[in-house]
Amino acid sequence: MRVLGVDPGLTRCGVGVVEGVAGRPLTMLGVGVVRTPVDADLSHRLLAVEQGIEQWLDEHRPEFVAVERVFSQHNVRTVMGTAQASAVAMLCAARRGIPVALHTPSEVKAAVTGTGRADKAQVGAMVTRLLRLSAPPKPADAADALALAICHIWRAPAQNRLQQAVARHTVNATKGRTA
Amino acid sequence: MRVLGVDPGLTRCGVGVVEGVAGRPLTMLGVGVVRTPVDADLSHRLLAVEQGIEQWLDEHRPEFVAVERVFSQHNVRTVMGTAQASAVAMLCAARRGIPVALHTPSEVKAAVTGTGRADKAQVGAMVTRLLRLSAPPKPADAADALALAICHIWRAPAQNRLQQAVARHTVNATKGRTA
Repeated sequence: MRVLGVDPGLTRCGVGVVEGVAGRPLTMLGVGVVRTPVDADLSHRLLAVEQGIEQWLDEHRPEFVAVERVFSQHNVRTVMGTAQASAVAMLCAARRGIPVALHTPSEVKAAVTGTGRADKAQVGAMVTRLLRLSAPPKPADAADALALAICHIWRAPAQNRLQQAVARHTVNATKGRTA
Repeated sequence: MRVLGVDPGLTRCGVGVVEGVAGRPLTMLGVGVVRTPVDADLSHRLLAVEQGIEQWLDEHRPEFVAVERVFSQHNVRTVMGTAQASAVAMLCAARRGIPVALHTPSEVKAAVTGTGRADKAQVGAMVTRLLRLSAPPKPADAADALALAICHIWRAPAQNRLQQAVARHTVNATKGRTA
C-alpha cells in the first residue's frame, strides 16, 4: 500500500510518500515541500501547488492520498489558504481516480505517538524512528506529511472494515424494504 | 470586456457571464449554477465543480474571472467548503492564464445597489434591471454571480489605474535606489 501524505499549505505544502502495510516495517519513498511565493497572486499560488502535487503523483503513483483535515478554529487568516491548498490536493487525486482520506491532526498524532496532544518534536522523532531515517525530516510540514501517510496505512484496515459493515448494513436495509 | 462571475459553493456554485464596459449598457451572456451532490465524497464534489467551471470557461472564453472573496466569520462549517470551491474556480482560471479578481460581498452589493448592506432581493432586482432581464435570475447564487461580474466591470478601471500607479511607484523607487 503506497500513500502520499499531504500537509496542506500555501507557503509550505508538506508531501511524503510511504509504502507498507499495518504491522510490518514501513518504507519512505520520498519527502519534500511544495513552496509558493508569499507575494504571488492567490490564483497563481494555487496553480503552483497543483503543479507540485501533480509532479509527486506522476513520480510516485500512490494508491491513496491522505490529506490533513482542516479546521477553522485555527488562525482565521491562514486557515483559508490551508483549506484552499487542501482542495487542490484533493482535486488532483480525484482527477486520477485516487481515493482521498482526510485525517485530523490529533488522529495523526495519536497514530504515530500514542497521544493526540503530541508536539511537533515528538511527531518528528516517531516518524524518524518508524521510517528508520537518520534524522527527522525538515521542515515540520514534511515530517507531518509522512505522519499522515503512516496514519493512513495504520488506520485504513479499521476504516475498510467499517465501510464494509456500512455497506452490508445498507444492503440489508434495502432488502428489508423491498421484501 | 467579458467577465465570468463565480459565487463559490459546493452545493450550489453560481456562475454568470456579463459583457460590457463601465458607463454603457451591459449584456448577460449566460447564467447558471454548478451543483454537486451533498452526499458525495469531498474530493469528488471538488472535481464536479472543476468540470462545471471548465465548461463555462470553454463556452464563454471570459477575459476575467471575478470570484467572491470568502471570509471565515460566516458559518464555520460551510465556509470551508466555500473556500475550497473558490480555490477550484481560481485554479481553473489561472491554468488558462485568465486574471482572477476577488471582490467582497459588500463591494459587490455596493457596486450594484449603492449600499454594502443590501439584501438578496435588492441585489436580484438591480441585476435584473441592469441586465434588462424579464425576471430576477434564480437561485440567488446565480444572481450573485452576475452581480460579481457587473461589480468587476465597473470597478476594474479604478483598479487598473491603481495598479498602474503602484507599478510607476515601484519603477521610480527602484530608480531611486540604483541612482
